[in-house]
Amino acid sequence: MDTAAPLPPASTVPADSTPVGTPLFSRIRLAAPSDVPHVHKLIHQMAVFENLSHVCSTTESDLSANLFTSPPFQSFTIFILEVSPKPFPENSPHNSNLNYIPVVRILNSDHPVDDPDREIFKSEDENVVVAGFALFFPNFPAYMGRPGLYVEAIFVRKCYRRKGFGKMLLSAVAKQAVKMNYCEVFWVVLNWNVNAIRFYGDMGAQMLPEWRICRLAGDALQLHQNDN
Amino acid sequence: MDTAAPLPPASTVPADSTPVGTPLFSRIRLAAPSDVPHVHKLIHQMAVFENLSHVCSTTESDLSANLFTSPPFQSFTIFILEVSPKPFPENSPHNSNLNYIPVVRILNSDHPVDDPDREIFKSEDENVVVAGFALFFPNFPAYMGRPGLYVEAIFVRKCYRRKGFGKMLLSAVAKQAVKMNYCEVFWVVLNWNVNAIRFYGDMGAQMLPEWRICRLAGDALQLHQNDN
Repeated sequence: MDTAAPLPPASTVPADSTPVGTPLFSRIRLAAPSDVPHVHKLIHQMAVFENLSHVCSTTESDLSANLFTSPPFQSFTIFILEVSPKPFPENSPHNSNLNYIPVVRILNSDHPVDDPDREIFKSEDENVVVAGFALFFPNFPAYMGRPGLYVEAIFVRKCYRRKGFGKMLLSAVAKQAVKMNYCEVFWVVLNWNVNAIRFYGDMGAQMLPEWRICRLAGDALQLHQNDN
Repeated sequence: MDTAAPLPPASTVPADSTPVGTPLFSRIRLAAPSDVPHVHKLIHQMAVFENLSHVCSTTESDLSANLFTSPPFQSFTIFILEVSPKPFPENSPHNSNLNYIPVVRILNSDHPVDDPDREIFKSEDENVVVAGFALFFPNFPAYMGRPGLYVEAIFVRKCYRRKGFGKMLLSAVAKQAVKMNYCEVFWVVLNWNVNAIRFYGDMGAQMLPEWRICRLAGDALQLHQNDN
């Protein structure tokens, strides 16, 4: 999984108590087609974090053409992480999405987050800003015989890291897998990303050190179009 | 990818010439629900090859419940590799599957294959035996913005190895990816399987040595069902 969202969660307070300090309301919801511009920017920020900008060619029209073509969870699916200094509006259209009830939490920060990209990542709901995302799709581990969820990417924007949002996103995917009676959540991580690896271990993940990734792409893939 | 199908292809002859020696007709076609018993046995043989029998719990009813629930290539998809000492029947129902035109090749073996599991792997068409399979599904590399194909498993039964069938299966997946304008074919391999790694390199695959696999499953996954 591409990720830049490791490290321990910040202190949290239950939704029904009054937070002290500066509250930061957070929400995970299913992405909608109108989120494509934000998802596109998040993917490119993630590529910068992973030193992989040179291989990142995703465009907004790529995303519009290939996402949202089937019901959520049955194919490529995106969770959007949003934050707000105020409670999320009760009449948000996202609350009526029958496929997924948004997860809402209140974090208690010592001080307000200084978000330099606030305007760029402004969400549809007032005061709400997009802070991260998770992209995942069903896989099918042959030895389990039941589907799982393959997490392609989890990313939290820099100013929102170290607050438990990475854990919140991965937990939301894991919880969805359990809900669907899926057998696993699977992802890959760069071996130098020690913070992420520690974070995944704390989440209960098992590392499988014997496996290596192979990929056939570009010209090497095109060469196979005439194979018999 | 789980695999036991490496090593160089045997000599082949074009379909329109008369093979010398012992011809072995081979075909790759889409799996049908009636293939589930064979796929089930192939998965368990693959687990033995990979020293992973202890983690293989797949049942026939798992496969029946989770495969064939959407059109081929849109979700979990299986290619079946079959062999026959005689040409495949022209009236085979598999030839009329509109989703995929079977790939047929004739290999020229020095001597007939001694298949101890011939009866167990007998196919619907006369004289035809199931020799292997590939299991794959769409993935979505965030940095490419277009889908690819994730190959979960490629397996060729022991007596049919070293004849180019592994290459034939992987080529069929790659060709399908090109046909659908997909950006990559992606899989994982055990780092001790040097034959497979060499074979994939010969196919044009790139190894990505920096990535490691993570997995959340079993009790560690179930623990997340109550996450907020």
